Amino acid sequence: MATLDPRTDLPVVAMIGGGQLARMTAQAAVALGQSLRVLAADPADSAALVAADVVLGDHRDLAALRQVAAGATVVTFDHEHVPTEHLRTLEHEGHRVAPGPAALVHAQDKLVLRRALAEAGEPQPAWCEASTVHAVTEFADEVGWPVVLKTPRGGYDGKGVFVVDGPDAVAPLLEAHGTLLAEERVAMVRELSAQVARSPFGQVAAWPVVETVQRNGICAEVMAPAPGLSAELATEAQELAIRIADRLGVVGMLAVELFETAEGVLVNELAMRPHNSGHWSIEGSRTGQFEQHLRAVLDYPLGDTAMTAPVAVMANVLGGAAAADDWAGPGLDERIHHFMAHWPDVKLHWYGKGQRPGRKLGHVTALGEDLTEVRARAVAAAQYLADGVVDPAFAFAEEAGHE
Amino acid sequence: MATLDPRTDLPVVAMIGGGQLARMTAQAAVALGQSLRVLAADPADSAALVAADVVLGDHRDLAALRQVAAGATVVTFDHEHVPTEHLRTLEHEGHRVAPGPAALVHAQDKLVLRRALAEAGEPQPAWCEASTVHAVTEFADEVGWPVVLKTPRGGYDGKGVFVVDGPDAVAPLLEAHGTLLAEERVAMVRELSAQVARSPFGQVAAWPVVETVQRNGICAEVMAPAPGLSAELATEAQELAIRIADRLGVVGMLAVELFETAEGVLVNELAMRPHNSGHWSIEGSRTGQFEQHLRAVLDYPLGDTAMTAPVAVMANVLGGAAAADDWAGPGLDERIHHFMAHWPDVKLHWYGKGQRPGRKLGHVTALGEDLTEVRARAVAAAQYLADGVVDPAFAFAEEAGHE
Repeated sequence: MATLDPRTDLPVVAMIGGGQLARMTAQAAVALGQSLRVLAADPADSAALVAADVVLGDHRDLAALRQVAAGATVVTFDHEHVPTEHLRTLEHEGHRVAPGPAALVHAQDKLVLRRALAEAGEPQPAWCEASTVHAVTEFADEVGWPVVLKTPRGGYDGKGVFVVDGPDAVAPLLEAHGTLLAEERVAMVRELSAQVARSPFGQVAAWPVVETVQRNGICAEVMAPAPGLSAELATEAQELAIRIADRLGVVGMLAVELFETAEGVLVNELAMRPHNSGHWSIEGSRTGQFEQHLRAVLDYPLGDTAMTAPVAVMANVLGGAAAADDWAGPGLDERIHHFMAHWPDVKLHWYGKGQRPGRKLGHVTALGEDLTEVRARAVAAAQYLADGVVDPAFAFAEEAGHE
Repeated sequence: MATLDPRTDLPVVAMIGGGQLARMTAQAAVALGQSLRVLAADPADSAALVAADVVLGDHRDLAALRQVAAGATVVTFDHEHVPTEHLRTLEHEGHRVAPGPAALVHAQDKLVLRRALAEAGEPQPAWCEASTVHAVTEFADEVGWPVVLKTPRGGYDGKGVFVVDGPDAVAPLLEAHGTLLAEERVAMVRELSAQVARSPFGQVAAWPVVETVQRNGICAEVMAPAPGLSAELATEAQELAIRIADRLGVVGMLAVELFETAEGVLVNELAMRPHNSGHWSIEGSRTGQFEQHLRAVLDYPLGDTAMTAPVAVMANVLGGAAAADDWAGPGLDERIHHFMAHWPDVKLHWYGKGQRPGRKLGHVTALGEDLTEVRARAVAAAQYLADGVVDPAFAFAEEAGHE
């Protein structure tokens, strides 16, 4: 029998982390009759600004984790940084943790992931565990330079990833970071993401495979469905994601980030939570990833993942010119006015965070029929919010006519 | 220059009332980077359960109103019950109130509305102000019995409305309620609702006119667009709503509840806030009424009101058999499980309120192409949540095939 909130007779999901993923999960919880409980580091965290039930504390502090777990139906995550041993302790103390630590470690530790995928025979780049310069050069003899070195833990948005052209650069990285994951530099066509949700019951729901466009290692755009992807490769990617979710016992959302190559797809990394590559689904799918994550961790039946329009494009708003200290143009409120006037059909998701260059401040989603038009609309809107200017190239796309 | 939240550089909307309309407005505020401030009577109020910024107090208490207005960009409403003189006081003290008291009184007082519509020459039922039995019988001589008597203020969901067949029933009602509004009983085909949003700038956005189905005076279903409504009558109803919004200076959402008759449409009453007849727009329109209300009261440009599917049907979940004290069937959490398993594409909005028979506990929205199928799906899902049983008639609709 699940723990229920006596005020509502409904479950309470506790999410560790107060970022925009928790914020949008709190928003989705409202429709399900719930009030998301959030463990946030700071009262000004994105989710803490909007959630009714906020525990302030550090995700590495077991006491804070125990406090947020008390009375919650299930504990889940907006990031991968909770120490595995703390999650095991919570489980031993009788709390439901989803995804469980045994699954989550594959999203926390890239070496653990590489070993598990190798054992399962799933497609991935050539790799090795490297503690010495010799190990890296030996690996490079096989796959060629440059080699990609990654810190096994703690990297995100391009942090902890180093492309090295030769052995000289390796020693300082090993010294700074200890054992690294070495990977071949894949000759990729583009990056894809295959998202699925899985419930403890074992039900799995898959969304269309999307193309993700990164800039400086940070997700900038997501196109759903991935344009021009063959039905065969799309199915292959979805089946791969479902196999991984099942094999690892994932509960909740799983994003499988993929490299598309001439030969097929290779697994880059995993996220076991709502993911930037699924933000489009809030409006673009009958069930958005945030609602689906709640359904999955609560072992509710999963929602329909059909798209609501032929094409959805999400563009991140990364802090740009307008987030700089010396910005003298229109303030945020004024930019939102202009955004709304110019793009009445583009949906805004602003995270309420302090504006800093490079920070993910929000995203926009455009829907429609024609990818070129929809993409131009989303990208121009996001760029205007970030930089306070409209790319002159958009004028042309506009002339070409909205749907 | 608008008052902005220093944490986010964005406006703060304060909503008086903590019901489900405030709850869904709080949900919409999240996407706009905002955190709705709510004046709620009780910490267990629907909106108080999910909003981060809750002031507890009574909407008739000027001190509480001042407290929630302090530092807010604009004050708005989830119901019509705030005393007009308090709103005038807030305005005199420099607060922005939307809709303003001069407009809002037309949604608060049915006699004021009738006079204003008469002056404007807008279509409405025959009516008179009745303080004596004689006035009612004289009116009935013109329009015939039965006559509909309404308390000018405070009625909602069929409360304060009395259908009287002859003069004998009139005196006790006048004694109990004082002056009443007397109206002809309209020979209506059905009820419609025309919703528009209007900003202080004067921008107006209209949604498709919908059909509302009432049971026992309470909204049970809403079909968007109103099935079989001629383009001429739809336009007439939208233009009527826009004229009323302009003439009264409405700011925010306006629902014009209409009687459709053989001769055209007549105005029943107004709501100047998000309204039950617009819940379908959360998923069924590119811009939902809750987001639009925020945009309008903040004088943001309004969002696109295009529908996202050919047909949307909203069905209310009114507390039914499963809300009774002696209910021995599946509890709410279990019913939601079954609901999700059976209708993976019907969207749930549960309000978190205590379950009592007849109370509006939530609503569901179904989208699709075929009205009969979409309506059957929404109604069966709502009925299951309310009563814990599936109408056998739905089995047939299901056999006939989902889209």
